[in-house]
Amino acid sequence: MRLHGYFRSTAAWRVRIALALKGLSVEHVSHHLRRGEQRAAEYLALNPQGLVPVLELDDRATVLTQSLAICEWLDETHPTPPLLPGDALNRARVRAVALAIACDIHPVQNLKVLARLRTLDVAEKAVTGWAREIIAEGLAACQALLPQDEPGPFLFGPAPTLAELCLVPQLANARRFGVDLVLLPRLLAAEAACQTLPAFQAAAPDRQPDAE
Amino acid sequence: MRLHGYFRSTAAWRVRIALALKGLSVEHVSHHLRRGEQRAAEYLALNPQGLVPVLELDDRATVLTQSLAICEWLDETHPTPPLLPGDALNRARVRAVALAIACDIHPVQNLKVLARLRTLDVAEKAVTGWAREIIAEGLAACQALLPQDEPGPFLFGPAPTLAELCLVPQLANARRFGVDLVLLPRLLAAEAACQTLPAFQAAAPDRQPDAE
Repeated sequence: MRLHGYFRSTAAWRVRIALALKGLSVEHVSHHLRRGEQRAAEYLALNPQGLVPVLELDDRATVLTQSLAICEWLDETHPTPPLLPGDALNRARVRAVALAIACDIHPVQNLKVLARLRTLDVAEKAVTGWAREIIAEGLAACQALLPQDEPGPFLFGPAPTLAELCLVPQLANARRFGVDLVLLPRLLAAEAACQTLPAFQAAAPDRQPDAE
Repeated sequence: MRLHGYFRSTAAWRVRIALALKGLSVEHVSHHLRRGEQRAAEYLALNPQGLVPVLELDDRATVLTQSLAICEWLDETHPTPPLLPGDALNRARVRAVALAIACDIHPVQNLKVLARLRTLDVAEKAVTGWAREIIAEGLAACQALLPQDEPGPFLFGPAPTLAELCLVPQLANARRFGVDLVLLPRLLAAEAACQTLPAFQAAAPDRQPDAE
């Protein structure tokens, strides 16, 4: 399989973690987002959304897009270790936290949206303030969504889930924008637990061949 | 079950369609988003994200958030008719289109984000232009993501899926913002097929008790 991504893309990072947890190795193809390589005609033919990640299967004809759809596919086709709990209610809770990040934080503060803000002559300070506020409010809501009596060390028990795949990259992004994380101890504890795992270590941006 | 929503919320609308397709009736509780009722302390205790929908289960203690997580839960607990295809690859394709709308269109142009733009003194014309462009670009990409040889009448064959649950409300939103839909015939054909189904009819905003 080939994963089209970019070392700093939080969406590609989620899929890198999933692949590493499942013990799957893939060829990595980098598209430099700040240089706009994801808008090249050849890439748009692969993914008309012009976004990373894309997972190309070994037949070179099947192309999967959208990080959460790719992670769910990986989980269905390579069930061990699972990214989602065994019962429907807990799956819904894990997916809700993943989606609270993947829908309500990341797309509202990604490169593309911040670039669009700049075209409206919004001052640079307000652009970074926009990202900082959306991340801070969104992560606070995520923490409040967590079960109250969960012993951890992960968000939903003794192993990471789809929620951590979204959380860890989003926390890194939060730091880049100077978000104060002091009031988010449960998220930080889960992140610390993730960082002890080789799969999370291998998927980190600074470990990717295209890291700057 | 109780569904906390708002007649015009596209996210609540997705869940209304899912419930209707599954033949489930629920009590509807409306929260007027333009009046900010979703930010009332009582509602934030239910959903700290301050967003609709929320599905409260009959035990009155279990609360599900995030429309796609709720729809997946409904599909797992009430499998007929299915909202997702039977095989993993087609499920990934359906989820990708649903997520392309639920992550990359809706949260970037919803009420909350447009209100935030206004706080940055962006002119009203640019605010509506922002929404129109994001919806137009996003829907064009969705159409391009569809399988080329699909006979329809729905996006992925003879029955609607999670993708239509996201598409139909998003197309209504597109019209509110004056998006030109003429180049999106496959999306419009799927919408027309949906509109013949009683479940989609019953879930429409103008059929809700809180419709204005």
